[in-house]
Amino acid sequence: MNKNPVNGMRDILPREMRIRTYVLGLIRDTYRAYGFTEVETPVVESIENLTGKQGGENEKLIFKIMKRGGKFDLSKAATENDLADSGLRYDLTLPLSRYYAAHQAELPKPFKALQIGPVFRAERPQKGRFREFYQCDIDILGDPTNLCETELILATAEAVSKIGFRDFNIRINDRRILKAMARVSGLPEEAYGDVFIALDKLDKIGTEGVTKELVALGMTEEAVASYLGLFDCVSGLSGTDAIAALAERLADALEPGTAENLAEIFDLVSAAKGGSYTLVFDPTLVRGMGYYTGPVFEIQVPEFGSSVGGGGRYDEMVGRFIGQNTPACGFSIGFERIISILAERGFDVPSGGEKTAILLEKKLSPAKKAEALREAAALRASGKTVLLDTMIKNRRFQKEQLQENGYTDIREIYENPLNA
Amino acid sequence: MNKNPVNGMRDILPREMRIRTYVLGLIRDTYRAYGFTEVETPVVESIENLTGKQGGENEKLIFKIMKRGGKFDLSKAATENDLADSGLRYDLTLPLSRYYAAHQAELPKPFKALQIGPVFRAERPQKGRFREFYQCDIDILGDPTNLCETELILATAEAVSKIGFRDFNIRINDRRILKAMARVSGLPEEAYGDVFIALDKLDKIGTEGVTKELVALGMTEEAVASYLGLFDCVSGLSGTDAIAALAERLADALEPGTAENLAEIFDLVSAAKGGSYTLVFDPTLVRGMGYYTGPVFEIQVPEFGSSVGGGGRYDEMVGRFIGQNTPACGFSIGFERIISILAERGFDVPSGGEKTAILLEKKLSPAKKAEALREAAALRASGKTVLLDTMIKNRRFQKEQLQENGYTDIREIYENPLNA
Repeated sequence: MNKNPVNGMRDILPREMRIRTYVLGLIRDTYRAYGFTEVETPVVESIENLTGKQGGENEKLIFKIMKRGGKFDLSKAATENDLADSGLRYDLTLPLSRYYAAHQAELPKPFKALQIGPVFRAERPQKGRFREFYQCDIDILGDPTNLCETELILATAEAVSKIGFRDFNIRINDRRILKAMARVSGLPEEAYGDVFIALDKLDKIGTEGVTKELVALGMTEEAVASYLGLFDCVSGLSGTDAIAALAERLADALEPGTAENLAEIFDLVSAAKGGSYTLVFDPTLVRGMGYYTGPVFEIQVPEFGSSVGGGGRYDEMVGRFIGQNTPACGFSIGFERIISILAERGFDVPSGGEKTAILLEKKLSPAKKAEALREAAALRASGKTVLLDTMIKNRRFQKEQLQENGYTDIREIYENPLNA
Repeated sequence: MNKNPVNGMRDILPREMRIRTYVLGLIRDTYRAYGFTEVETPVVESIENLTGKQGGENEKLIFKIMKRGGKFDLSKAATENDLADSGLRYDLTLPLSRYYAAHQAELPKPFKALQIGPVFRAERPQKGRFREFYQCDIDILGDPTNLCETELILATAEAVSKIGFRDFNIRINDRRILKAMARVSGLPEEAYGDVFIALDKLDKIGTEGVTKELVALGMTEEAVASYLGLFDCVSGLSGTDAIAALAERLADALEPGTAENLAEIFDLVSAAKGGSYTLVFDPTLVRGMGYYTGPVFEIQVPEFGSSVGGGGRYDEMVGRFIGQNTPACGFSIGFERIISILAERGFDVPSGGEKTAILLEKKLSPAKKAEALREAAALRASGKTVLLDTMIKNRRFQKEQLQENGYTDIREIYENPLNA
């Protein structure tokens, strides 16, 4: 048998686990104070749902689970999909939409969901990127108003602040602005998806790179130049001023109310926010997933290049299950990134008070053992953490390990105290 | 797309989720006070490990995950196993043993692990039995003494008591007693596995049923009668008296020290235990898994036929990974059974203080919205839970739902209060 975890997945050692549990506790407590209700969905979803075109590139990375019990005939199986009937979820948004579609009659309306759990993507394993990782999502279903975006941003920013991040940005944009920009530039509607994918790389490959990519896809240089030129009108402006300037430039191409809605989110977040973060309008912000229909946002912390969380409005996904669209908006914290930043900072969990370790000589009489057990029980009853351990040969190593793990009070029990 | 969860798995609705989170909190807090350290392993394990003969019947129930990215040739694939390289774990003991084998140099010695997470078995779906379910395990690795069994029993019984169970039994036996009984009866050693499987059904099929099953497997009626007759020597006895009587009857067939060790566990648990439970010696207790090497135990609550948790010593599993045996002992709480018993009792989580819901008229001016957001922020800052919701058409339904979810303070904000 093989003692290593499967390729790309990993065992969580105690020190990291302590940080994870602590951070999850802060996130949970914050979201609960905002009235979010925890739910859970299976880690396994049907292949039909996982390949339903809601997952974009992630649908290429599905771990597929084989049909069981003579349900397929290997000699006749033509493709991978004939052999698999389910797979591991690649995110929490798709399962939540399915959940709401299935259970909405039993759920409060609007429904504020908190979901925390592992998701799976068969990416090429590389440093800091794993095939099993946690997501922490909050979503509001059944409410079309910008109270959703506002509360999601306030709650997530508060959670991220409590974890210890300062001076971070929450970038915000609206999918309808992206579309209007493409429209006024005369880019073909069927190419919007490609345009957004290219634009998403603007900070990495620059206007030149984006142009090259779009021209290679058959767009004219003029249209692309006109498109990228649109960003000039917000130059030197920020926040609601930038939104207003861009809206004026886009005029009728922009869906009515889009700019006003976005500007109001700015005002509302400003009115209620605590913490040292800034809401930033960024017309180049795309967010990868194709399912977004309105505002999109992401968190950027100073010390980390890419985002540590993001989300947006996706009013059409629940409709894929029940044929009727349902307003939906969510914000996901990139939990693993947060944890790896904390680990790099050398973060450790605040100490939880004095902990006692009682070490018992290996060959101890039942009477002495019973005495130690009673001592431990009494201490635990008073609220203390007490570890009872049998002494190992290398007692010095054992005690060092205990001290590292916060056991400041170490007691040793010998049959004959003179042996100590 | 399909709005239902995959066959045999389920979505957890808010009410049950609240109970689950609450119970997990009690379990975690109890185990932490005993010095157990939380760890996590991937839900995916290699096929090699999952089919390594440590899982007994569970190995027939594995969800297998297909190899990815052109790693197999369907036209040549001869069997299911040619197509799968990994699968979903069927328990937490195998991954923990692998974990300890891989990381023991970085872990305290002895190592006290707490692991909570989902496991997967492709059983025929039926009421109350799911294909994805949670286990909560504590294990002590690296300590050969009965301090392990004692602490595992004390900690688990305390957790189960805190959840609200009274007058439950913890049944205990030792695999070496089972073996010695089979030995003195002249049953063939290669049949011990079958003997134990049959004995495990004693309370369901009676001595007649067990006899029938074993005779059908080729054992003589005399040997089986002699085997079952051994239980007569403990008739009317209990606890350490029963252990002593049986040990005397088994004499040299029993590994030296087995009875003394078991009796000492009785004395130690009695010395330190709180809560209203009883430790019961039950020489018919088997526990299904083949990997147990010493004491085995399980929890039985009055209102539930089968066990709600169990465990035992398995000193040989880590050795399957690293070639060197390591003392190991664990106790697993059957979390789903606990939750379903609580649900049947109508249990709900203790209220967490007053919660406020603020309902906003759908078309509210930004100024009024901002005011409500500030009010919510101030209340949350003082430690309160505040839900901000947009009013829906059926306001009465919305408020009923909120009350059901513990929102006793419901405030409504209208643009013009005369509209209320």
